[in-house]
Amino acid sequence: MGLSLKTAVAIIEAALARGHELRLAPLTVAVLDAGGHLVALQREDNSGILRVEIASGKAWGALGMGIGSRELGERATKVPHFFNALAAASQGRLVPVAGGVLVRDASGIIGAVGISGDTSDNDEACALAGIAAAGLVGQTGARPAEA
Amino acid sequence: MGLSLKTAVAIIEAALARGHELRLAPLTVAVLDAGGHLVALQREDNSGILRVEIASGKAWGALGMGIGSRELGERATKVPHFFNALAAASQGRLVPVAGGVLVRDASGIIGAVGISGDTSDNDEACALAGIAAAGLVGQTGARPAEA
Amino acid sequence: MGLSLKTAVAIIEAALARGHELRLAPLTVAVLDAGGHLVALQREDNSGILRVEIASGKAWGALGMGIGSRELGERATKVPHFFNALAAASQGRLVPVAGGVLVRDASGIIGAVGISGDTSDNDEACALAGIAAAGLVGQTGARPAEA
Amino acid sequence: MGLSLKTAVAIIEAALARGHELRLAPLTVAVLDAGGHLVALQREDNSGILRVEIASGKAWGALGMGIGSRELGERATKVPHFFNALAAASQGRLVPVAGGVLVRDASGIIGAVGISGDTSDNDEACALAGIAAAGLVGQTGARPAEA
Repeated sequence: MGLSLKTAVAIIEAALARGHELRLAPLTVAVLDAGGHLVALQREDNSGILRVEIASGKAWGALGMGIGSRELGERATKVPHFFNALAAASQGRLVPVAGGVLVRDASGIIGAVGISGDTSDNDEACALAGIAAAGLVGQTGARPAEA
Repeated sequence: MGLSLKTAVAIIEAALARGHELRLAPLTVAVLDAGGHLVALQREDNSGILRVEIASGKAWGALGMGIGSRELGERATKVPHFFNALAAASQGRLVPVAGGVLVRDASGIIGAVGISGDTSDNDEACALAGIAAAGLVGQTGARPAEA
Repeated sequence: MGLSLKTAVAIIEAALARGHELRLAPLTVAVLDAGGHLVALQREDNSGILRVEIASGKAWGALGMGIGSRELGERATKVPHFFNALAAASQGRLVPVAGGVLVRDASGIIGAVGISGDTSDNDEACALAGIAAAGLVGQTGARPAEA
Repeated sequence: MGLSLKTAVAIIEAALARGHELRLAPLTVAVLDAGGHLVALQREDNSGILRVEIASGKAWGALGMGIGSRELGERATKVPHFFNALAAASQGRLVPVAGGVLVRDASGIIGAVGISGDTSDNDEACALAGIAAAGLVGQTGARPAEA
């Protein structure tokens, strides 16, 4: 089935609600399908003009490597030359820092959520909250979290 | 004031509702602020993977020239070499065909809506419906429609 | 399920076999998933070095618009400025000429096949042969062929 | 003579078979001719969407410098600014990490194999297995391995 627009909007609304609860800075939330294409995006008022590319890039990078962007960020600190090459190879579409979370259902990976605006830990927390609210499972590393 | 996220979401929802009334093909709707940056986007299920770029490009082109994309399309048929140059100059961000509508309030141009998925006339009709539903004024040409 | 590697290889082998039967020029065959990403590609000996981009671009364009590349080619002759804009918007990934065929199963569009090397009509014939051999349905226009 | 499609397919099949023996993550295998152009590619199910660019980039980088990508990776850790410049100069086509192996026959370098999906050491092991199975010689550094 893939990741429907209805699901994507539900994820965004729940993620932004979590951000408001935590009194975070204005967020931008991007939801991509498994092919790396936008399904829905919302940028809150006063969220910076590069936040669209950053939020999308966190999600795209997670899909590109099949690994959540938190782990990509950890790897990037160890082999920066490789991630510089990936940035170029992906034409800037890969942003290796926490806040890009793979979305799974029973069939496997169906898309990814990327958030930018506050600290990357807080961005990620909102992504996970949004995914959970939609009844789906988030993945921040190389494999699904254990139950 | 600019174009708020709340307004952008209202425009998208009304535009998609209009598309459903008209039984159109699945649409992608992009709302950009005056700086040409996405505020919100929704791509309906089964809307093609280039529709994000096309919808955004119609809106961006309208902002880029200060002219609604319907008139850009008419001009492009007369001076195609100029618009080919614009495509390159904008790095592919300008798509000169109807469906990109400038959004005005009393202060002037505050953003643009771009829609892709059905015929460009139908795309534009949905953009105008969405803008009107938000209490704003759409502009498809070089100047505001007369009252 | 999407378009598996096993299916992609079966499509390519049958498409190339058809080309040999018809004594065509050397072909390049690309099979993309629904997200526009390569699953498999084969370039026959003496098939030109740009054939990879052309074959991929026919398939990518079909997915990008949700329309087979034969119809894209027909539309491009009517509104060339729009397709010039699409070429730029897609960063050269859209090639609007026959030979890019959408692949459907019961669930809808699961990918696309693009072929380049001989005339575009012959390229398309081989794509359709390959898709049929894999038990799937090809689409060269804006909607599925009627049964 | 160059690197024929028949040889390229044989390399891919043997490389993937080796990956299955080692129970590796899903792999993407790209085979390029001496000019740096794809001859054949296969991406296994659930191999990430950027793996095509990474596998191709490892092989392309090896051809670009005439040095296997293992050694490129070692050099990149010493002079990262140079490899950042190479990434830009190659428009993202060079990925300096193990898994890109030059292919030699008696006449010299006839192409390169790039693999991505598991650790770079495992990727490389599969590339070498594929090349050997085709009766050819792999090169992971600046010069051929000694007999």
